[in-house]
Amino acid sequence: MELQRQSQITAGQPIRCKAAIARKAGEPLIIEEIEVAPPKPWEVRIKILCASLCHTDVTFWKMSQGPVAFFPRIFGHEGAGIVESVGENVEEMEAGDMVIPTFQRNCGECRDCKSPKGNHCSIFPDEIFKGMPRDGTIRFSDVNGRPVNHFLGVSCFAEYTVVDITHVVKMSLPIPIDKACLLSCGVSTGLGAACKFAEVEEGSTVVIFGLGAVGLAVAEGARICKASRIIGVDKNPAKFEIGKKFGVTDFINPTDCTEKSVSQVIQEMTNGGADYCFECIGLASLVADAFSSCRQGGGKTVVLGLVNDGSPISINPYEILTGKSIMGCFLGGIKPKLDIPNFAKMFLDHELNLDGFITHQVDFVDINKAFDLLLQGKSLRCTIWMDKLYSRQY
Amino acid sequence: MELQRQSQITAGQPIRCKAAIARKAGEPLIIEEIEVAPPKPWEVRIKILCASLCHTDVTFWKMSQGPVAFFPRIFGHEGAGIVESVGENVEEMEAGDMVIPTFQRNCGECRDCKSPKGNHCSIFPDEIFKGMPRDGTIRFSDVNGRPVNHFLGVSCFAEYTVVDITHVVKMSLPIPIDKACLLSCGVSTGLGAACKFAEVEEGSTVVIFGLGAVGLAVAEGARICKASRIIGVDKNPAKFEIGKKFGVTDFINPTDCTEKSVSQVIQEMTNGGADYCFECIGLASLVADAFSSCRQGGGKTVVLGLVNDGSPISINPYEILTGKSIMGCFLGGIKPKLDIPNFAKMFLDHELNLDGFITHQVDFVDINKAFDLLLQGKSLRCTIWMDKLYSRQY
Repeated sequence: MELQRQSQITAGQPIRCKAAIARKAGEPLIIEEIEVAPPKPWEVRIKILCASLCHTDVTFWKMSQGPVAFFPRIFGHEGAGIVESVGENVEEMEAGDMVIPTFQRNCGECRDCKSPKGNHCSIFPDEIFKGMPRDGTIRFSDVNGRPVNHFLGVSCFAEYTVVDITHVVKMSLPIPIDKACLLSCGVSTGLGAACKFAEVEEGSTVVIFGLGAVGLAVAEGARICKASRIIGVDKNPAKFEIGKKFGVTDFINPTDCTEKSVSQVIQEMTNGGADYCFECIGLASLVADAFSSCRQGGGKTVVLGLVNDGSPISINPYEILTGKSIMGCFLGGIKPKLDIPNFAKMFLDHELNLDGFITHQVDFVDINKAFDLLLQGKSLRCTIWMDKLYSRQY
Repeated sequence: MELQRQSQITAGQPIRCKAAIARKAGEPLIIEEIEVAPPKPWEVRIKILCASLCHTDVTFWKMSQGPVAFFPRIFGHEGAGIVESVGENVEEMEAGDMVIPTFQRNCGECRDCKSPKGNHCSIFPDEIFKGMPRDGTIRFSDVNGRPVNHFLGVSCFAEYTVVDITHVVKMSLPIPIDKACLLSCGVSTGLGAACKFAEVEEGSTVVIFGLGAVGLAVAEGARICKASRIIGVDKNPAKFEIGKKFGVTDFINPTDCTEKSVSQVIQEMTNGGADYCFECIGLASLVADAFSSCRQGGGKTVVLGLVNDGSPISINPYEILTGKSIMGCFLGGIKPKLDIPNFAKMFLDHELNLDGFITHQVDFVDINKAFDLLLQGKSLRCTIWMDKLYSRQY
């Protein structure tokens, strides 16, 4: 209600607020004052209440050159907030609605959105790196009036952001804002990949390479789908205990595999290979390991990690003829507007463990601590509270 | 009936008959007299009536060294015939039954055969190159009593062969023997890949790289599944007219693609990529082209060709995250004992065009002509009649 009243004042006007700006690749973000333009048609201006840091932010933050490296930039693509105002033609939501922005768009009207397959949305060309997805323009400017670039159509490391309606999910269920935030990217990626994209079957065997937040969300999805065995593979031995909370039943530390390869160990553990292997790190060599660990005759390898160095994925041509498949997806192959509310319901029905993912919390001013924690491998998700008022509520 | 009478005499005895023996890699086969041992338990001795030549025979025939190159050898893995006698424990068929041997086994009892997924059969280790699959022993000997190696568990370039029961499909439907022969490998591979493995959907777009018998059978399958557009890609321009008989609607000659790559042409023709791309040649680079030609968000690349030179298949890691998948199978992913009779029924119901695949016929003594025709790209399938009596009937 408070925000609806505020909206009557701010709608149509630029808003001055704080944002964490990445001025240079790999350097700490700087909290600065920015101006956020009002939303154009089909756009929504969102007051971000909570954000969290995902590895993809870090990947792009480190990237000093290349066609998708733009600085200064406002990172952040995992967040949740409240609609402050909407642009023309936006009828799906209004000021005061709780929303979850997502980097994966979902127009609901293109051929791909109407297809039950996958979550590709072909309404715009794939260009959501620098500005708004619909026209490429920018809504942020710094105190000197200079533009600040967007990130993946979301840019939620700011008190306010502008997001295209195709990138916003309305959340009508009473889910706490920090849990909503988790569904914006990482958890939905793992959960969707297991439950929807790979369709893990009851009684099946699942291997997860990399037990970060995405990998653990795969485990949680596989647990919900009643997989009989969920094998985690991670170099950090502490991840087994953490993984158990999300359904991990077995653990392999590749460092311990001296006499046999990881895939040989998995082949033996699963009597011929796992039904599903998920790669959640983003290493081409690990995708090959996952593929080798899969069962002939139906084994699926699912790629979720973004291979940063551009190395091609290499597949043995004989092995693929034995009935194996390899597939990948962004955001777990879910259609955000359809599936994120379902995940929220699963959480409210106590079917889905979300609490376990939040290992740390910081105030917005301390956002660089969230980077440190992730870089040091200490956190799964560190929530970043934009508004202290909200952080005290939860 | 004649064979049943004969069986009373020959059952349990070695049979002397003719076989086309490959004595050296790449050299013409020699028709020689051989002795075919009686079937051991779980084996069937088959009087081959008709065989045909598949590219895989040629691939192995050319192979002068390596772990799967064995000479002397009786090639042939696409054939049909009549059971002459059966070994102990064989209850599924008896002397006089029409049967189709297949290189792909189907025990019906292992975990994989019982699973609805794919057609992998895990009853034996994967060793069907040199001898019988169950124990590795050999049933053929030449006039000097020296063993002659088997091929893919079938070896049907002989008047009689011995095949494990897991590699034999009983054909109770009155399908002509040469049409039955086609279902033994190539046509079932393409048909199964389209209709069963990839599950081509009505109204979808399909691209086929390589319009040999397998590629054309993919087209036939896609036609039966009501694909809206079936694009053939082949360097031989004559293949378009041939392809039209099997449902091909569009044709691309890669030689004509000078300004744009084949995948760019396909992307444009299909407004963003095809729903299904089938690679039917066995070139790693072509698999990559097929993958690039597929639609983001659900596009499937299906590998059917065996990459002979061992080159790995290389996949762009970003592209796979857009929701594409790549998969492969032997024999079109069909379970032979279940699906081959279904294909025979489709033929008898006039739903399936098999006649168009048979472009040439030779008597057994002229088997090397079948090699010449295939090597020169002149034939789709050349049927090899083992018994002149039968060739006159059809």
